[in-house]
This record gives sequence, C-alpha cells and structure tokens, in this order.
Amino acid sequence: MAHSTTSVDAVLFDVFGTVVDWRGSIIAELKSFGAERGLSVDWEKFTDSWRGLYQPSMEQVRSGRRPWTILDVLHRESLDTLLEQHKLTALSEADRVHLTKVWHRLQPWPDVVAGLTRLKSRFIIGTLSNGNVGLLARMGKNAGLPWDVVLGAETARAYKPLPEAYRAAARLLNVEPQRLMLAAAHNGDLAAAAREGLKTAFIPRPTEHGPLQKIDLAPDGAWDYVADDFGKLADQLGCS
Amino acid sequence: MAHSTTSVDAVLFDVFGTVVDWRGSIIAELKSFGAERGLSVDWEKFTDSWRGLYQPSMEQVRSGRRPWTILDVLHRESLDTLLEQHKLTALSEADRVHLTKVWHRLQPWPDVVAGLTRLKSRFIIGTLSNGNVGLLARMGKNAGLPWDVVLGAETARAYKPLPEAYRAAARLLNVEPQRLMLAAAHNGDLAAAAREGLKTAFIPRPTEHGPLQKIDLAPDGAWDYVADDFGKLADQLGCS
Repeated sequence: MAHSTTSVDAVLFDVFGTVVDWRGSIIAELKSFGAERGLSVDWEKFTDSWRGLYQPSMEQVRSGRRPWTILDVLHRESLDTLLEQHKLTALSEADRVHLTKVWHRLQPWPDVVAGLTRLKSRFIIGTLSNGNVGLLARMGKNAGLPWDVVLGAETARAYKPLPEAYRAAARLLNVEPQRLMLAAAHNGDLAAAAREGLKTAFIPRPTEHGPLQKIDLAPDGAWDYVADDFGKLADQLGCS
Repeated sequence: MAHSTTSVDAVLFDVFGTVVDWRGSIIAELKSFGAERGLSVDWEKFTDSWRGLYQPSMEQVRSGRRPWTILDVLHRESLDTLLEQHKLTALSEADRVHLTKVWHRLQPWPDVVAGLTRLKSRFIIGTLSNGNVGLLARMGKNAGLPWDVVLGAETARAYKPLPEAYRAAARLLNVEPQRLMLAAAHNGDLAAAAREGLKTAFIPRPTEHGPLQKIDLAPDGAWDYVADDFGKLADQLGCS
C-alpha cells in the first residue's frame, strides 16, 4: 500500500452496500411496517427479491430499450411487481410512496460517518452511485453523511458500470481520472472504474447480502487500496 | 411574510455575490499577488473588468454560438484577454492557472456559514450557480460551506437565467418547482426562477459591486421572502 495519495483530489463512494446497509435497513423497516398491519410476509425474502429486480430494471435503461429513468421510479415499479406477487395489492398509494422512500432512509455501516469525516478533511468526498440525486441527498441528510458533492448515474445519465458513469464524475469535478478514486464494496464496480483510469479502493462488506454472502468477500483485482472499513481507508490515505 | 414553509423541501442559493464576496476576495488576492511581483495595476478596475466579461462569455454559450463550456474555462479566457490588455502577457502558465482558481477561493459574507448551518437543519441546501461543479466543490471546502448538493449550470448544461437551469435543479432533486426555493441577491435571477414556479428569497448584498453599487439594492418583485442576511432568512423560515 505504498502509494502516493497527494495525486488524488477526490474520493467518490459507491453507496448501496458500501456506505449503507440497505438489506438490514429495509428488512427492519418492512418487519415493523408488516407487524403494524398484521401482514404475514417473509420480509427478508421480500427485500432480497426487491434488490433482485435492481439490475434487470437498470439494464432496461443501460441497453437503451428504455429512456433515462431515475432509480426512485425503478424502485417503485419493482415494489409494485412484488406487491402483486405477494397478493398485497390492497396497499394504498401513500403506503407505496412511503415504502419506496425506504431507500432514502437507509442506515450507514457503523464506521462510515467517522471515516468520511476524516476523509473529508483531505479530499473532496462524494457519491458515485446509481441512486438519483434526490434519493442520495435525502439519504445523506437522514444519515448525516458529510458529502461535498452528490454525483452518480443521474448526473451522468448512465448507470454504472457503463463507462460514462465514471467519466462524467471526473468531468464534473474537472479532474483527470487518475486524480479521482472510487471506493466500493464491489469488485465489478472497481473494475469498471479502473478501466476508465480511476484509482480504486476496496472496502469489503461481508454481510451486505446477509449471513450467507458468497461474493465480494475479498479483492479480486489489483486495487490501489484495500481496507476493512472507512476508518482504515482514512488511515491508509494519511488522514488525521 | 406569513408563508407556510412546510411546503418547501430545498433551498438553493445563487453563489457569486449572494454567498461569497467575489469582488472583495479577488481584489485582496490580486493586490497581494501584484505586490509580490511588483506589478503596477489598478486591481479594483481589473477585477471589475474580469467580472464584466462574465455575462458576455456565458452569452456565447446560452445563445448556442458556442458548445457547452464550463465557467472555469470562461474565467481563464477572460483573464487571458485582460492580461493582454494590461500588457501582462509575461505571466506564466502556472500563474494564470493560479489566478483563474481565485474563483475557487472566494470568501463568504460573514453571515453565511452560520445561516446555512441553521437552514441545513430543516431543508436540503445547495447551490444553483453558474459556477461549474468542480469550482463550487472546491469553494465549498475552502470556505466551509455545508452544502447538501452542488447543482447549477453544469448539471443543467444551461446557464442562468435560461429556464432549463432552474428546471433541471427541480428535476435533479425530484421535487415540484414550488417546493424549491432560490435565494439570491439578484432580482433578475429571482424573476427567472419565479417564472419556472420556484419560490424566491431576496437577500440584498449592497456592496457586492463595491461602495457605489446602484443595482439590486432593494427587491423589485413580489418575492416570497426578503431578508437582510442568511440568519434573518433562517429566522423567517422557522429554523432553530
């Protein structure tokens, strides 16, 4: 890990899984929601199914089969599909709006806020997420994430891992790609970033997908940094 | 001023003049720069001339005579023009880069950081500026501006006061225009925002253009809020 960090101006973060525990947060909310209404649903399975529709829904947009559509809309459509499958079609519009916005209320992993605060003292920090700007802004306020900038698929009008998602972030910050780092819990995201010339940091989140997670437990590429959490990344990057 | 503020989700700010004292900041830096190099220049006039090229340079882009170009580039071109006029063509590339980035180092008016911090407790706060994202992000870090989001001409690919600049901000935050407020020291900016359905707050900055300022000393439209500074705006909007 003997890298010069003086050449990096900004560190951008994947958000779902890397910054926030989407699965734990959503299961907790859905269980509470279901208990209040006396609904008998396997909410862990429901949550995994909701996330399971994430990549297929974005792929419609990536492939050009569908015009640009923000993630809030894709989340709502996937929710409606699942409610239909689970015979929960009696849920009101207000409930559906509320449930879709659970993605605005995700909780960060315990190391995140302190780690970001340290990283912010030295680098521009921000998002490079497939979440839309409004979603990320609200999540940031709810969770106290001290972003300098909120960037991602919507500001690029391209979902990761399309090259334009990474290129647009460098362009918007007006930095050379090699002066921009992506921090992510997902090897595939880092591989796509590295192909565009970005620096890379892998922070494994071994329970993102629950206790039986099989993927992204270890780095599978020559990433510039590998750190157990955001505090360790701040250490490696020389942040006080 | 008996408005309901519960219907506003976000307050976005014009930056040059409204948040930061561009004229005072630049004159101070240029005087210091000139003294170090023994240059005899009227730096107040130089600064006013630099800003004088701002609207014409953006108008080239607004009108479509020139493709999308960020403000950092326009600032640099205007600087080069002025250096030529002042027979200062011996200035090095490094000096020109440094001087262009003075726009990243502008200082906020004294009420700004405390006022924004209060407003942030209740609203999404951010920029709606003709500055590019990289410029605004660096200015925000230098000046300690606690933005939730950095939006503006570059994320809209349209310079204010074109309608798209305001529409894009509402779209990116995923809010109805009437749930978005622009705070600005410039009546013209507020008029353009109001035409797109945004709420408006006028904060006069009577010395933005120096001691002899003649414009924007008072509101000339029916703005939703008028406040002497950001603290007073926070009071009016019910922020603790």
